[in-house]
Amino acid sequence: MDLTEVLLTSERIYEGRILNLRRDRVRLPDGREASREVVEHPGAVAIIALDKEKNVYLVRQYRYPIGRVTLEIPAGKLDAGEEPLLCAQRELAEEVGLAATEWQLLLAFYTTPGFSDEIMYLFLATGLKPHREEADADEFLEVVRLPLPEAVAQIFKGTIQDAKSIAGLLAAARTVQA
Amino acid sequence: MDLTEVLLTSERIYEGRILNLRRDRVRLPDGREASREVVEHPGAVAIIALDKEKNVYLVRQYRYPIGRVTLEIPAGKLDAGEEPLLCAQRELAEEVGLAATEWQLLLAFYTTPGFSDEIMYLFLATGLKPHREEADADEFLEVVRLPLPEAVAQIFKGTIQDAKSIAGLLAAARTVQA
Repeated sequence: MDLTEVLLTSERIYEGRILNLRRDRVRLPDGREASREVVEHPGAVAIIALDKEKNVYLVRQYRYPIGRVTLEIPAGKLDAGEEPLLCAQRELAEEVGLAATEWQLLLAFYTTPGFSDEIMYLFLATGLKPHREEADADEFLEVVRLPLPEAVAQIFKGTIQDAKSIAGLLAAARTVQA
Repeated sequence: MDLTEVLLTSERIYEGRILNLRRDRVRLPDGREASREVVEHPGAVAIIALDKEKNVYLVRQYRYPIGRVTLEIPAGKLDAGEEPLLCAQRELAEEVGLAATEWQLLLAFYTTPGFSDEIMYLFLATGLKPHREEADADEFLEVVRLPLPEAVAQIFKGTIQDAKSIAGLLAAARTVQA
């Protein structure tokens, strides 16, 4: 069966700082119509930064949409036209104060394909050394270093509750042990 | 350091069918101000449905925001006031045509805490038996059954590119083997 939904009309609802919103009418596979709300996002990167002792670097930050401080892997949005690898290098320097000699794209995934087009590129960064760059003016972070198995344990204890961090840490744990 | 951002003013931008959008002004930890765009979402569930032979049930569906057919674990949005477990039982019946005698909450996580409040409850369902309920009228799905290790392999081959499915399958693989 062809599952494709075909665009009929599109309405721009909002053009913002980090996202846009549109509402489309589409034709469904059975010929009927439906509406689809789409959050347009520039895409993002996330980084598993792993040192020689198999520690991983995490960041504590306040996430306004959920009203909570979270523990996450470092991450950030792509600037317009920015290469994911360059973005990951910039974010690792800004958020954690590190550079890496080895970069590997572990996975690329969609964070919420039901309502957004956000794609996220997940990198494994090794060969770490200090390298600080100026962070975004409205970001406040605390860096936390944990052994990778301990970070994985925090997922199942419920202290790491961020989807990209869960996917990234579990993927890295398989890759590193393999 | 107190990382909390404090609401100053809030502007409702859109009230929609599956999401709302608002834009808030906030006071940052250093006293300056910033704007925060927040997609309000009702929350969701996702299900690892595992049979006695350790096969997992996946769904192929067209995801309009990314313009692609994806392979994902079954999932769905919470109705207003709905208990996550009841939602998971409903979605498993609607999308896959199964009921389960054993339900375990594996994880709860935020899909995109940078711009949305969506929380997702991930269940492990076992003791499966046929039980079909009528699906949403605008959902078109194909069910795929795979051995769990094969589903995990599809993540690293890039054929499963959905964050909740990656997090869920990798979490289940650890739980089931342990």
